[in-house]
Amino acid sequence: MMFNKICIIGVGLIGGSIALAARKNNLCSNIVGFGRPESRDNLIYAQTQGIIDSYHSDMEAAVQDADCIIIATPVGATEAVFAQLKNYWSDTAVYTDVGSTKVSVIEAAEKVFGFTPANFVPAHPIAGAEQSGAKAATSDLFTGKRLIITPTNETSPESLDSIKDFWQMLSASISIMDIEHHDAVLAATSHLPHILAFALVDLLARKDEQNDIFKYAAGGFKDFTRIASSDPGMWLDICVANKIEIVKLIQQFQGELENITQILEKNDRQQLFDIFSNAKNARQCFLKLYEK
Amino acid sequence: MMFNKICIIGVGLIGGSIALAARKNNLCSNIVGFGRPESRDNLIYAQTQGIIDSYHSDMEAAVQDADCIIIATPVGATEAVFAQLKNYWSDTAVYTDVGSTKVSVIEAAEKVFGFTPANFVPAHPIAGAEQSGAKAATSDLFTGKRLIITPTNETSPESLDSIKDFWQMLSASISIMDIEHHDAVLAATSHLPHILAFALVDLLARKDEQNDIFKYAAGGFKDFTRIASSDPGMWLDICVANKIEIVKLIQQFQGELENITQILEKNDRQQLFDIFSNAKNARQCFLKLYEK
Repeated sequence: MMFNKICIIGVGLIGGSIALAARKNNLCSNIVGFGRPESRDNLIYAQTQGIIDSYHSDMEAAVQDADCIIIATPVGATEAVFAQLKNYWSDTAVYTDVGSTKVSVIEAAEKVFGFTPANFVPAHPIAGAEQSGAKAATSDLFTGKRLIITPTNETSPESLDSIKDFWQMLSASISIMDIEHHDAVLAATSHLPHILAFALVDLLARKDEQNDIFKYAAGGFKDFTRIASSDPGMWLDICVANKIEIVKLIQQFQGELENITQILEKNDRQQLFDIFSNAKNARQCFLKLYEK
Repeated sequence: MMFNKICIIGVGLIGGSIALAARKNNLCSNIVGFGRPESRDNLIYAQTQGIIDSYHSDMEAAVQDADCIIIATPVGATEAVFAQLKNYWSDTAVYTDVGSTKVSVIEAAEKVFGFTPANFVPAHPIAGAEQSGAKAATSDLFTGKRLIITPTNETSPESLDSIKDFWQMLSASISIMDIEHHDAVLAATSHLPHILAFALVDLLARKDEQNDIFKYAAGGFKDFTRIASSDPGMWLDICVANKIEIVKLIQQFQGELENITQILEKNDRQQLFDIFSNAKNARQCFLKLYEK
């Protein structure tokens, strides 16, 4: 057994799925969930379904004897969680998180501790769904998916290995990445697309003819906007946490739209064809990578 | 039998699917395909698979004795197709098309004939896929999908009824719509999303770190960019044909992105949350409509 007791802080889609996968792979004997009193219904559901063995809204009780603590809250809550954890910090346990932005998580640690604890391993599983909560958790959410670890200079090799082993046991494919590079790459592949999807649906929903628009939208629109059904609070946190990279990309995307507008106004068929073809070819390459 | 002989001009995803569905529903005894000599392989495939009974690259031979002629080429070819059809135009047959833009199709008819023929019924099935060609055709592509007819003042009630009946037999749900309104609605639900998807993938593919970007992109990115795998030539035609509506929407979308950027820079969490929530709620309403 890899761990005796895992404490999952935030038993949502990701936290719940980690619990299910850890249990399925026999990686620990006990899983405790931590959640705020407001999320009691979710915690009760998670316990009833056997996702977690017990739950607490008191941090001291939650982390008691845990040898692996996983922060799976929205990234905006990370600093507050570190502040609560600080009083009960154990040097023999290993800590990790699942935040979609990594610079902000490490800044939160530095703010609370004055440094990043050696036994905290910043990590990010590239997996998700537009649903949220323990109800959406599945034991195979991470199977074959990528898991990025962004160690700091202070991260201890033992803690790093422990979290690597853990995710490997959950059949994730591990990459080690520079902290800032992680945030730039994820802004491009995930954060910007989410903003574009939210922005499009918000724009259309505010139009007078919105009923007709949504009535005649079809399968392409459905897939394009799937991520606009994601949890607004979680995405608010991500966008605020990674806003520098995101704003940079929004501006580049605005430039791309400006260019397309000019091409349309000039009726330059060849240039428009080149952009569409380049996009199609790049996506076919992505698909090959993704399906492999 | 509704028709004796259907002539399908352009045996691609849409034309081929109409042929398969018409045959399955026993709507005609004979289906002939028309295509340019360059698309001979596609026509041979369509004949071999029984999608069409025969094919021609000569318009006179293709439309001979046909009582229903369906234009299913990319919209950019419509004017040239009308010009070829003009010499063999039959007043007893009914003509229709499947173009994604309707103003441009009617303008093409007016340019060629000086008016829109009374037996031409402009139509648009809201169905598709990112694949193209007869190979992608399926007999149930239109089942339960919407089909918009945009009659002109000149369209005869008999022709209109005939095309309505035809699509009803293919289990499509028929709507009658004003021509300009069709183009405005489709620009919002389909043309703008396609441009955004093409633009995003093109932007990312031109970045130095594109390998890492596509390597770490996941399911959300895959769905968001699915329509960027659509046929570039077909989408070039649509964007050029409907550019006035599309440019208007691109500019509105730029305004939305400008607003989100300012909100991020001001750290105005409430406003960002409101946009994301509004989008999520609107998409849930769309999903209910779509799945009904």
